[in-house]
Amino acid sequence: MNANLLPHIVIIGAGFAGLETARGLSNAHVRITLIDKNNHHLFQPLLYQVAIAGLLPSQIAQPVRTIFRKQKNLTFQMGEVSGINFDEKYVKLNGSVIAYDYLVLAVGGRTNFFGFDAIEKSGFQLKDLDTAVKTRNHLLSMFEQASHEADAEKRKAILTFVIVGGGPTGVETAGALAELITHVMKKDYPRLNLGDARVMLLEASANLISAYPDELRKATAKLLKKKNVDVRLNTKLEDYNGQRIHLADGSHIETQTVIWTAGVKATEIADGLSVDKASGGRIRIEPTLQLPQHPEAFVIGDASFLLDENGSPLPMISTVAIQQGVCTAKSILKLMNEKPLEYFHYKDPGLLATIGRNAAVARIFGISFSGFIAWVIWVFLHIYRIIGFRNRIIVLFNWAWDYVFYDNQVRLITKE
Amino acid sequence: MNANLLPHIVIIGAGFAGLETARGLSNAHVRITLIDKNNHHLFQPLLYQVAIAGLLPSQIAQPVRTIFRKQKNLTFQMGEVSGINFDEKYVKLNGSVIAYDYLVLAVGGRTNFFGFDAIEKSGFQLKDLDTAVKTRNHLLSMFEQASHEADAEKRKAILTFVIVGGGPTGVETAGALAELITHVMKKDYPRLNLGDARVMLLEASANLISAYPDELRKATAKLLKKKNVDVRLNTKLEDYNGQRIHLADGSHIETQTVIWTAGVKATEIADGLSVDKASGGRIRIEPTLQLPQHPEAFVIGDASFLLDENGSPLPMISTVAIQQGVCTAKSILKLMNEKPLEYFHYKDPGLLATIGRNAAVARIFGISFSGFIAWVIWVFLHIYRIIGFRNRIIVLFNWAWDYVFYDNQVRLITKE
Repeated sequence: MNANLLPHIVIIGAGFAGLETARGLSNAHVRITLIDKNNHHLFQPLLYQVAIAGLLPSQIAQPVRTIFRKQKNLTFQMGEVSGINFDEKYVKLNGSVIAYDYLVLAVGGRTNFFGFDAIEKSGFQLKDLDTAVKTRNHLLSMFEQASHEADAEKRKAILTFVIVGGGPTGVETAGALAELITHVMKKDYPRLNLGDARVMLLEASANLISAYPDELRKATAKLLKKKNVDVRLNTKLEDYNGQRIHLADGSHIETQTVIWTAGVKATEIADGLSVDKASGGRIRIEPTLQLPQHPEAFVIGDASFLLDENGSPLPMISTVAIQQGVCTAKSILKLMNEKPLEYFHYKDPGLLATIGRNAAVARIFGISFSGFIAWVIWVFLHIYRIIGFRNRIIVLFNWAWDYVFYDNQVRLITKE
Repeated sequence: MNANLLPHIVIIGAGFAGLETARGLSNAHVRITLIDKNNHHLFQPLLYQVAIAGLLPSQIAQPVRTIFRKQKNLTFQMGEVSGINFDEKYVKLNGSVIAYDYLVLAVGGRTNFFGFDAIEKSGFQLKDLDTAVKTRNHLLSMFEQASHEADAEKRKAILTFVIVGGGPTGVETAGALAELITHVMKKDYPRLNLGDARVMLLEASANLISAYPDELRKATAKLLKKKNVDVRLNTKLEDYNGQRIHLADGSHIETQTVIWTAGVKATEIADGLSVDKASGGRIRIEPTLQLPQHPEAFVIGDASFLLDENGSPLPMISTVAIQQGVCTAKSILKLMNEKPLEYFHYKDPGLLATIGRNAAVARIFGISFSGFIAWVIWVFLHIYRIIGFRNRIIVLFNWAWDYVFYDNQVRLITKE
C-alpha cells in the first residue's frame, strides 16, 4: 500500500497529550505528522527544579526526534503553526500547507496573569525552559547583589523571595528555594547573613493545595513552616512595580523577586481560532474530546475545556493530558473502523508534591502520606516518569549527590 | 592581627591564570579579592563540545564560590571592573572603589575577527558559554530547516558547515561536527539525505595545527579526511553576507554557518588602559610578568604579551595561563618578603587535539601519538583537568554513554 494513501493524522504539540496520542498510534496503519514549536518534549512537573538550580534544562527535556526514532509511521516537524482550517482540513506551517484526515490539537497552556500586567512585566514565571532559566539566573544574581550591598534594609529586600500561588507548583518552589538558601547558599556565601533571607508564599484563598484533603493541607503548612517559609493565606496582590508589592490590605512587601505560579490559560494559538471557548481561552469540547461540528478534530490537554462528572472543569495538569492522549489514540482508531466513540473519564491517580529535602505530601490509592515516605515515593515516581534512560540515571545520580552532600546542581548564571 | 591590615591582593578574572594565582596563595597571610564578570570558571578547552551538543554548559563550568569554599582568605565578587588606577592602586567595581596592594590582571581573551565585520555579524564563535550555546542552537536548527526544505540546492547550502581556522579548536570542532552528523543526526533525521551535508575547514596558511611537528600535521589531515571533513589549505576569506562566503581566489561557498576559530585578542577591559600594548591589544609585560613601572601589578594569561627565549610571543593557551598563575603567586610572596623575582619560563607540556571518536593527535614528553591511544590520553587528561568531582563523574558517564550508543548529549534547541 502506498504510504501516501494511508490516513494522515496531524498532532500539534509534543507535550504530554500529543506524545501519548502519537505513542498510542505506533502500530496503526497511518501516517502521523507531529508538530511542535520546540525540538524537545519538556517534563513540566520538574520545571521548578530548573529554576532553583536543582536540575539542568537538558535533564527534563528530550528531543522529540530521539523519542520517536523507532516509530516509523511518524514524522516530526519543528515550527509554529500559523493557522488551522477546520472546514478544509489543513494546517499552515513553515510557509506550506499540511492537509489532514484527523487533527489532534494539543498545544498546551501558558501562564495566566489574570490581567496583572505589572507582574507579567516585572515578575517571573515557570512555563518553559526559557522562563525557568531566567528565573534561576535572577535568583542566583540576587545573592551576588546582596553580597556587595552595604545597606541592611536594601539587602533584606534583595533577599526577599515571593512566590504567588499556593498550588502544587507554588508549594514545591517555595520549599525547594528555602532549602537552597539553608543548605547550599549558606556555604557559597559565608559572609552573608542568610538570616535576612525570606521565602514568602502568598495565596489568595484560605487554603494551600486546595485539591488535597484537609490532613494533607495541614501537613503541607507544617512542613513549609519547618523550612521557614512565610505562608500568607487570604492574601491578594494589588500591584507590583519591580521593587515593591502592594497588597489588597494596604500593606506592602519590598522585593525584586515575584514568581507567579497562580494560573494557567490556553496557549496563543487558541486565540486565533474561531471556536467556542471557556475561561482562560480554553476550547470547549465534546465528552468524546472532539471539537463540536468537527468529529475528525480532537482538542486535548491544557488547551481544552471539559467538565467532569461532578460538573467541575478538568484540571490543567499532566495526568489529565496523558489520559486524554491515550483516549484520543483509541478514538481515532475507532473512527477509522467506523465504531462509536466512548466518553472520556478522568481517573485521578492521586496527588503528590514535594516540600524540599526529605519531605513531601502524597495521596495515592486514597491513602494520604506525608514526610519522608512521601518524599521517597515522589523521587522514584518522578525519575520513572522522566523520559530517556540516560536522563533517569543522571537525575538519580544528581539527587543522590545533593542528598549526601547537601549540594545542588551547578549554580550557573548564564547570559540572556 | 586584624584581617584588614593584611596585604590586599586583587585578582581580576577567574579563568585559568586568575584561578591558579588564587590557589597558589591559599596558605598566605593575605586578603584576596577575586573578581569576575561571570559567577563561574569556564573550562575553555572543551567549549567546542558545548557547540556540538557533546557536553552541557554546566559540565564545563563551576561556580567560583564553590571552588573557593574552603579558602578562607578569599572573597569573590561578581561584576565588571569599570576602571583601574595603577598609580593610586585601586579598581572600580559595582559603583565602589577597591584599593589593592597587589594586582593580578588576568582578564583573558576574546575572538579576534581581524576586522572581518561581516563575520563578526553573521558568523559564530566559541568564546564563552553564551556564544557556544548560540552556535549549538544554530547548528541544530539547520537540520530542522533542511528537513522541510524541498529545493535540493538550498538544502545543500543549509547543510554546509564552514569552520575557519586550522588551529586545535578548528580541527577539534570540525572533527566533532562531522561525527555528530554521521553517527547521531543520521538517526534523528532518517528521511534527510545526510550525504548532502558537508563540513569544511578553511585555513589561510599552508598547514593545519602549525605548532605541531610535521608527522602530527599529516596524521591530523589523514584523520580529518577519514571523517569526511573537506580541508582547504591556503584558503582566504574575502567576504560573507550570512548566505555566501566569497573566497580570495574568486570562488564562493553557499552556507549559513561560519564558525570562526581563527584568532584571539585581549578582552575589552585592556582597551581602556593606558599601558603599552602589542598586537591584538595584549599588554606588554616584563619577563617577571610585572607591568612596566608598576611592580605590584601583574598581567598574565591571554591579556598579556611576552616573548619567549626564541623571540616568539607566548601562545594564548591555557597551559601558559596556568603556569603564569603559579609563577605570579610565588612572585607576590617574594615581593612581600622583599626577595628578587625570577623570570617566567614556559615549559611546553605537549599538545593534544581530538578529531572525533577514537581519534586524536598528541605530543607528550617529545613523543608523537595519533589515533586511538592519543584519544584515550585526551579523554582522561581532560576529565582530570575539569574542576569538580561531580562534573568529572558526569562527563565520564556521558562520554562512555556516547561511545557505547553512538549518541550525544541532549540536542536541545533553546530560545535566546
